[in-house]
Amino acid sequence: MDYAKFVDQQIASLRETVGSGLAINALSGGVDSSVVTALGHRALGDRLKTVFIDNALMREGEPQRVVQTFAAMGIPVELVDARDEFLAALRGLTDPEDKRNAITGTFYSKVFGRLVRQTGARFLLHGTILTDIEETVAGIKRQHNVLAQLGINTEEQFGYTVLEPIIQLRKPAVRIVAKAMGLPPEIFKRPPFPGPALAARVIGEVTPERAELVRKATVIVEAELKRNAKGAFQYFAILHPDKVTGLRNGKRDYGWQIEVRCWDSKDARIGSPTKLPWSVLMKLSKRLTTEVPGVVSVTYNIATKPPSTIEAV
Amino acid sequence: MDYAKFVDQQIASLRETVGSGLAINALSGGVDSSVVTALGHRALGDRLKTVFIDNALMREGEPQRVVQTFAAMGIPVELVDARDEFLAALRGLTDPEDKRNAITGTFYSKVFGRLVRQTGARFLLHGTILTDIEETVAGIKRQHNVLAQLGINTEEQFGYTVLEPIIQLRKPAVRIVAKAMGLPPEIFKRPPFPGPALAARVIGEVTPERAELVRKATVIVEAELKRNAKGAFQYFAILHPDKVTGLRNGKRDYGWQIEVRCWDSKDARIGSPTKLPWSVLMKLSKRLTTEVPGVVSVTYNIATKPPSTIEAV
Repeated sequence: MDYAKFVDQQIASLRETVGSGLAINALSGGVDSSVVTALGHRALGDRLKTVFIDNALMREGEPQRVVQTFAAMGIPVELVDARDEFLAALRGLTDPEDKRNAITGTFYSKVFGRLVRQTGARFLLHGTILTDIEETVAGIKRQHNVLAQLGINTEEQFGYTVLEPIIQLRKPAVRIVAKAMGLPPEIFKRPPFPGPALAARVIGEVTPERAELVRKATVIVEAELKRNAKGAFQYFAILHPDKVTGLRNGKRDYGWQIEVRCWDSKDARIGSPTKLPWSVLMKLSKRLTTEVPGVVSVTYNIATKPPSTIEAV
Repeated sequence: MDYAKFVDQQIASLRETVGSGLAINALSGGVDSSVVTALGHRALGDRLKTVFIDNALMREGEPQRVVQTFAAMGIPVELVDARDEFLAALRGLTDPEDKRNAITGTFYSKVFGRLVRQTGARFLLHGTILTDIEETVAGIKRQHNVLAQLGINTEEQFGYTVLEPIIQLRKPAVRIVAKAMGLPPEIFKRPPFPGPALAARVIGEVTPERAELVRKATVIVEAELKRNAKGAFQYFAILHPDKVTGLRNGKRDYGWQIEVRCWDSKDARIGSPTKLPWSVLMKLSKRLTTEVPGVVSVTYNIATKPPSTIEAV
């Protein structure tokens, strides 16, 4: 594939479709929505409004970091604080499907829908890629960004048209396009991050406190494995809901268990655990139990995909 | 310590105390109750009745194996099937303390209490050791066999006296005594097994189905780690209650997660995970996900004690 030609074609196509109208898109900081943002801004300039929606489920400092990265490329991104709305929607939910639906519903029907109406945009740029379609069709998971299968008819419901400029690409091709467009390595090399964000890493109910615990654990896992698992496809921390017995200052103490997953994989379709050295595993365990309040137990996932999946929910 | 002298003293003391009366004891197959059984039978012969109570929470084939081991030494053990009574007491309970209490209560107040009354025994031989007392006093865990701290006054409640012939010993000394008394290696080298048995390895509610799942997982973990973790202090499987996402025949499938723990430790007071080779971890993961129905995910515990404990509940 000629990626320079692909970029030119998509830019031309966006210009032709949007014409003199207004477009909007939501940037998550992932490589897919980043490429769409870059394509959209080259095509439309300030007729594309890009928002970053803070749903309370982002990694530590991520909203600010993403906005700054794009500001440095001359692309303005508006940071929208919708943390309370998402946390309210998640309250009391423990089923993974219910949690996904709450996040998707809050995103499209409430927060993003409101922004679209406020701006009067008639076009929505969306980072759907071929892998999303394939996985949705296979029934493996519900991608939160495949609107049709969620029963969302955007033209009827919101009055806008969805444009999907990278729908022909699989993940590796998206990374190549990102690099070819001059996006920085922290974007084109960025490990995948799930649609439901940290809610996918909290098994059971997502409360502000539990989101904060897994956020702290994520900082540690990403810092240690960025250094020590360079070839890995993806690594992250999961917070389990059931308390396990621990021991603090010689007394019994129930506490939390964090599961670490680190995957070797080419494209997420099959995977196996990274064979981390024991020194790295012990360092992870030590930091998680001393730096994250209440954590007394740490496990490392040793299953393959299949029968496991990359994420736990 | 002169172990031969210790054995002679305890035998003499049991003979003197019990006189021409009847004694009873419950054998679990662990090294503590095995030593007590051997001491009691040397002291009292057929005036000691030994029972093995099948509580539905034993490992695969364990009740029959223990009875046969003692039969081969000329010590008769009666196998008592109390599986339904224990499972009924556990129904609906998820809290670790409630589960422990249900097992202890069913054991003493119902099953064993009934046996004591039926036999008319006035003396109960019990395998309490010094480590049990120390851990109970420290508040780390509630040993199910320290009667007093459970509020059970045996003389008042059941009309018998409790004799504790090995209460001066810690675990390593008990193993030496077991070997000195001619008990076979499967007993004096036996890894510790918790009082609440497999109920301690099922987080959340213990149903017959979940006990069976963890029993199957235990067979695999013990077989693999007996070969491949010869120096380890203890190893076992834990069944988690929350379902995680898996993938079977290309379709999403929620399933169970098994946690494997394997400890390096001298005496259970401090411990660290055995640094198993990756080939062993992958073999465990492969067998657990293919041989135990519904299991899609496997983790290996990498925490130290403290702040973890050896068991999860």
